Amino acid sequence: MTWEVFSIIGTVAFAISGTIVALEEKYDIFGVYVLGFVTAFGGGAIRNLLIGLPISALWDQVLLFQIALVAITCVFLFPHRLLKHWHKWGNFSDAIGLSAFAIQGALFAHKMGHPTSAVVLAAVLTGCGGGIARDLLAGRKPLVFRAEIYAFWAICVGLLIGLEIVKQPIGLYILFVGTVILRVLSYSLKWKLPYRSLQSISNEQIHSK
Amino acid sequence: MTWEVFSIIGTVAFAISGTIVALEEKYDIFGVYVLGFVTAFGGGAIRNLLIGLPISALWDQVLLFQIALVAITCVFLFPHRLLKHWHKWGNFSDAIGLSAFAIQGALFAHKMGHPTSAVVLAAVLTGCGGGIARDLLAGRKPLVFRAEIYAFWAICVGLLIGLEIVKQPIGLYILFVGTVILRVLSYSLKWKLPYRSLQSISNEQIHSK
Amino acid sequence: MTWEVFSIIGTVAFAISGTIVALEEKYDIFGVYVLGFVTAFGGGAIRNLLIGLPISALWDQVLLFQIALVAITCVFLFPHRLLKHWHKWGNFSDAIGLSAFAIQGALFAHKMGHPTSAVVLAAVLTGCGGGIARDLLAGRKPLVFRAEIYAFWAICVGLLIGLEIVKQPIGLYILFVGTVILRVLSYSLKWKLPYRSLQSISNEQIHSK
Repeated sequence: MTWEVFSIIGTVAFAISGTIVALEEKYDIFGVYVLGFVTAFGGGAIRNLLIGLPISALWDQVLLFQIALVAITCVFLFPHRLLKHWHKWGNFSDAIGLSAFAIQGALFAHKMGHPTSAVVLAAVLTGCGGGIARDLLAGRKPLVFRAEIYAFWAICVGLLIGLEIVKQPIGLYILFVGTVILRVLSYSLKWKLPYRSLQSISNEQIHSK
Repeated sequence: MTWEVFSIIGTVAFAISGTIVALEEKYDIFGVYVLGFVTAFGGGAIRNLLIGLPISALWDQVLLFQIALVAITCVFLFPHRLLKHWHKWGNFSDAIGLSAFAIQGALFAHKMGHPTSAVVLAAVLTGCGGGIARDLLAGRKPLVFRAEIYAFWAICVGLLIGLEIVKQPIGLYILFVGTVILRVLSYSLKWKLPYRSLQSISNEQIHSK
Repeated sequence: MTWEVFSIIGTVAFAISGTIVALEEKYDIFGVYVLGFVTAFGGGAIRNLLIGLPISALWDQVLLFQIALVAITCVFLFPHRLLKHWHKWGNFSDAIGLSAFAIQGALFAHKMGHPTSAVVLAAVLTGCGGGIARDLLAGRKPLVFRAEIYAFWAICVGLLIGLEIVKQPIGLYILFVGTVILRVLSYSLKWKLPYRSLQSISNEQIHSK
């Protein structure tokens, strides 16, 4: 039951996130639906591909497809209210999708009896894979590799579920809300993961992009 | 029989289309062959991956590989005549490939007894998947998401075949020619699918690309 | 035994190559690890996908994962010494990876009893697939399609192994060193594969990028 709830929340949030990116790129209605669906179902597809499940298992999720269809159509038809502050909304729906799908992917792998490392991997792939596919199809560098802290929260989710620290539905809902808050704080406060600048190493300064 | 004819036409047209894109990007001879093959066989590979058929079924199509090899080599060796008006030719071969592969993909899924929705999906994936893979490997935003009406014709093909409105070879050939004409008209007359501009919503004006 | 040695060398070299590209793109620590792993294991994954082996066979390579993890971490923590002349190092580690993985992929397909054409394909996919995936995730046009001679050496490796011209371990080590030298000479001396300029055909001159 918990699992289904997180699937639905993640699907709606990522479908909206993909739709917004497609609108930003001025893609037409076909591109909007493709990006919406790819963002919503791409993470699960990549996870299934890499852990050896048939990708065609995707097609059993008829209810989720219908939900995604409705979500994308709503954003496409009525963007004015929702998108007045679309940048904030895009990030927020992305945060909800990340949290819900990381938990769903981790529960999925844990239920199959995989070790903790595989649970973490499933959390990261399910939580981030759709967004990476979305960014590639939009001709962008994947947000997750360079923006404020993102995948790290999926890793934490995977560890907490893989090590059975969080097990009960109530704990999972708290984990869900906590992950969303941490992700929102990450981009609000511009928390960054450490990175190394090659420029400073080679004493070059690049001012332009 | 009809099915094979459409496979051959689509393979030649998409192989040429991939070759022309690679030449535009100044890719070397290796890049030219990769893009030619990816455009010709990528759509079928993506369709097989997503509907759960083994991708390695690709390798049984020895004849189609040889045909693609000859087509790419001809364009690479003798581009002068063919490519004098290459922009037009690129679009035209792409239109033929779209039409042939959309019909081939739809027939393929219909023969396997899938429902209409899967027939439409197979038509779109087979017709558009190769072009999307080509554009990503060329570092471009996929044409199909933003250009003149493109995937919509593959959806129509899928519906007409899935609902058994077009069944006989003669009908399929008419459908093939009609789809090519509609696609050519789409870019000649710059027909567009509806799209939403976020700029107008947020009252921002962006003049630069 | 020979096979394992080439797997380890290729994994380290490509993991370093992916790490350097991620640092160049200013990706954060998550992006660094993803690009390192994708470059090291993406070629084998694409090969398995296209020749019909389960991609999840990846996860059996626990030792290689640990080696890649150490290599990426070393480059990330101590880039100063290694990366002072990072451009040269990036190309050199890429050359070692290309050579080792082309040989490993060719041996892999040959051991399975595939015909020469499949051995060549496996050499090219294993040698070049990781680099293509790395470049796409870094938002770049794949190096292999347009730079100095690259994939051609993988094709030669595939032919020499597929036709059983090189069979013994000692021959394979010579082939490995020879391929690295030829690849290094390719970019040092700027050897190019033939390409066709559409600009000269259409008498257009484009001076800007």
